[in-house]
Amino acid sequence: MSDEFETVTERVRERVDPDSEERKRLDEVAERLIAQAKAAVTELPVSGDIVQVGSTARGTWTSGDRDIDVFVRFSPDLPREKLETYGLRVGWSVLPDGREEFAEHPYVTGECAGFAVDIVPCYAVESASEIRSAVDRTPFHSEYVTARLDPTLAGEVRLTKGFLKGVGIYGSDLKTKGFSGYLTELLVLEYGSFRSFVETVAQWRLPVDIDPEDHGTRSFNDPLVVIDPTDPERNVAAVCSQTNVSRLIHHTRLFQTDPDTEQFVLDSPDPLSPEKMQQELASRETTPVAVQFDAPDLVDDQLYPQLERSLSGVRGELDRRGFETLRTATFANDSAVLFVECEITERPAIERHEGPPVDAGEHASDFYEKYVDSEAYGPFVDGERYVVERPREFTSARSVLEEAIFSVALGVAVEDVLREGYEVLVGQETAVLADEFGAEFARYFDPKP
Amino acid sequence: MSDEFETVTERVRERVDPDSEERKRLDEVAERLIAQAKAAVTELPVSGDIVQVGSTARGTWTSGDRDIDVFVRFSPDLPREKLETYGLRVGWSVLPDGREEFAEHPYVTGECAGFAVDIVPCYAVESASEIRSAVDRTPFHSEYVTARLDPTLAGEVRLTKGFLKGVGIYGSDLKTKGFSGYLTELLVLEYGSFRSFVETVAQWRLPVDIDPEDHGTRSFNDPLVVIDPTDPERNVAAVCSQTNVSRLIHHTRLFQTDPDTEQFVLDSPDPLSPEKMQQELASRETTPVAVQFDAPDLVDDQLYPQLERSLSGVRGELDRRGFETLRTATFANDSAVLFVECEITERPAIERHEGPPVDAGEHASDFYEKYVDSEAYGPFVDGERYVVERPREFTSARSVLEEAIFSVALGVAVEDVLREGYEVLVGQETAVLADEFGAEFARYFDPKP
Repeated sequence: MSDEFETVTERVRERVDPDSEERKRLDEVAERLIAQAKAAVTELPVSGDIVQVGSTARGTWTSGDRDIDVFVRFSPDLPREKLETYGLRVGWSVLPDGREEFAEHPYVTGECAGFAVDIVPCYAVESASEIRSAVDRTPFHSEYVTARLDPTLAGEVRLTKGFLKGVGIYGSDLKTKGFSGYLTELLVLEYGSFRSFVETVAQWRLPVDIDPEDHGTRSFNDPLVVIDPTDPERNVAAVCSQTNVSRLIHHTRLFQTDPDTEQFVLDSPDPLSPEKMQQELASRETTPVAVQFDAPDLVDDQLYPQLERSLSGVRGELDRRGFETLRTATFANDSAVLFVECEITERPAIERHEGPPVDAGEHASDFYEKYVDSEAYGPFVDGERYVVERPREFTSARSVLEEAIFSVALGVAVEDVLREGYEVLVGQETAVLADEFGAEFARYFDPKP
Repeated sequence: MSDEFETVTERVRERVDPDSEERKRLDEVAERLIAQAKAAVTELPVSGDIVQVGSTARGTWTSGDRDIDVFVRFSPDLPREKLETYGLRVGWSVLPDGREEFAEHPYVTGECAGFAVDIVPCYAVESASEIRSAVDRTPFHSEYVTARLDPTLAGEVRLTKGFLKGVGIYGSDLKTKGFSGYLTELLVLEYGSFRSFVETVAQWRLPVDIDPEDHGTRSFNDPLVVIDPTDPERNVAAVCSQTNVSRLIHHTRLFQTDPDTEQFVLDSPDPLSPEKMQQELASRETTPVAVQFDAPDLVDDQLYPQLERSLSGVRGELDRRGFETLRTATFANDSAVLFVECEITERPAIERHEGPPVDAGEHASDFYEKYVDSEAYGPFVDGERYVVERPREFTSARSVLEEAIFSVALGVAVEDVLREGYEVLVGQETAVLADEFGAEFARYFDPKP
């Protein structure tokens, strides 16, 4: 690879590596939090230990990240309600101005000296395969990575995270469906450096199977499989979508050919105005249809799977009804929108419906009798079969959304909200959506790998 | 079966059976023609014999048919040009006011005392498997049937022909693609009566194989196979279309359930007016497109296969281009027309075009490079592949017909005529076709089995 690779990555390192001042501040704050948490645990009627986890614990955070995760580990003998009560008690003690959130357990999240702090209770199980909930696994990940990452490798991890952020695929939340910090660390451990990561990923042929501890016991149907070194039954990359893994291949190939610091910067186009959106639609000559409704009150990790399931249901129905979908998108903010760009606006009043072969005896004569006095055209014979041209149920994409939306598979929470009311937008009407989702539509109409 | 069957068929017999007067007149004319032909042969420098063939020779013509076919058989040693010269000489001698036509040989056709007469030369080969051209086979057919048909069976044949005419599938010409007189006779010989014909055909499961002499040596891929008793390698029903065989099954089943003299009468609806056709199109909400041109100067047996091949080419192209054809028809009179009813009028300016999987190395990067600076949307990544939305070549059915018609497989003679010029009609414009093809469109918009 070129010297340019070195030049470019050096420049990026300056940006992603926290300087000594930032490190020092973080260490001070983390130390203080841990001390406070430890003190709070001594007030409890049970014992527990405190561990700092996450990227700030292992020196792999990129400059500007401000997350400090502190876990409170209790004995596996502690009943779950006690664990939750004690965990919250420690949390409130450390973060008196925090707020309670809920993942697998309730926990306290808050702010301390400019850092975002989570105080999370978990069980101190013997091994990652004995976990009670996903958070129990985190300390094992932290321990595994910490034991293997030296400061040089930590730098390679930061560079790699910067690259994934630039592509827009850093994060294992269910909206992003990308690469978690732990997965990034495992890939850098596997390949040894960012350069080697780029060179290797650019050559990936999917599916890719990586098993650092060579202990995997299951097979997975995912495009990228990285067996968790702390749990032989888990694919750390399970959440990565096919599209995102493919996009990573694309971007590493591009970076290899033509290294550019820009690739570490997430493209953020100017929001599209409704007027520009109208122009785009007019030039594409497609028929977009959209369902807009109040966004269900859910965290993103619950909301986006619901939106995607609903979008897929609506798309499928529009395809089955002959409106041939070209592309889809779903966005949420105050409102949520299912957006489907169709190729077909309207279909005829009739549709061809094939009956049985004429020589199929009673089956055939039943079909003939059913339709002979109906309003359908026919029956007539085409080749071996009876055929009728019968009235089509839905002749426009709009009518499918207005009349048939509850017959498709929707996310439950989305269905509940839709029952309260929703708006159907068709064609140029959809351009008003750019008021709320201008940035999203800017990306939609200038799609990139 | 009901007594009604008897009542209905008796009434039909009165119509299809020629009375003694008609028989007598035919016999007289046929005798006279044969005598004249024999006399003409004696004038030739070679010998030849005269045979009357066809339905009027075997008593299976239906009342009102007025075809007398006289064959002049020469030795197989006679060179082809001599056969043609001598055949025409006999023809002109018998029918001085006739005209020359051309099937496999030239022959003379004309009128005599109200009958349509053909004088056709052929070779007196030893057996039907040694024929030089299709007409040589005819005397063998006549001989085979004459030897087996008594007057009662001849009556059953006439009734069956009447039924086939009522369905509109009597005739082995390439426009009708139905049942020849010979095929009808063989089926009646096989089944023994019209009643048994109806009962059996109503139960047919296609394909049906009939081999009266049990001597077939080939297999055929046709829905109905009736091995020629005079030629083990020939399917007498080869020309019957799948649709027509199926229609016969339908009509025999209907007749069995509810015998009606109307089934022996070909439905001939009033011609549709252009105004009514506009109403039909408006209510169907389809997009008909038509290509109208001067009918090529060909006999029907050459014209219709050409029209059908062209229609199929045009339909295929419209389907490939996304205009989803619903039904098609072709008609010819002074002009000829390829009529295709589409479900889709227009498509967007763009079409989705999938590239290779992103992980396909150079193949993938070539695709990306090809499109990255093009006017297409994308490339972007969807699942494992690169995708672009590129300009669509044809966005309307009209433009396909106006700009791409010569890229489709057309009949040669049709292509020649189209190169001289043609008219494209779309939507309501097509209604003018009802001026010339009103009866055809009346059937089209009220399709029956």
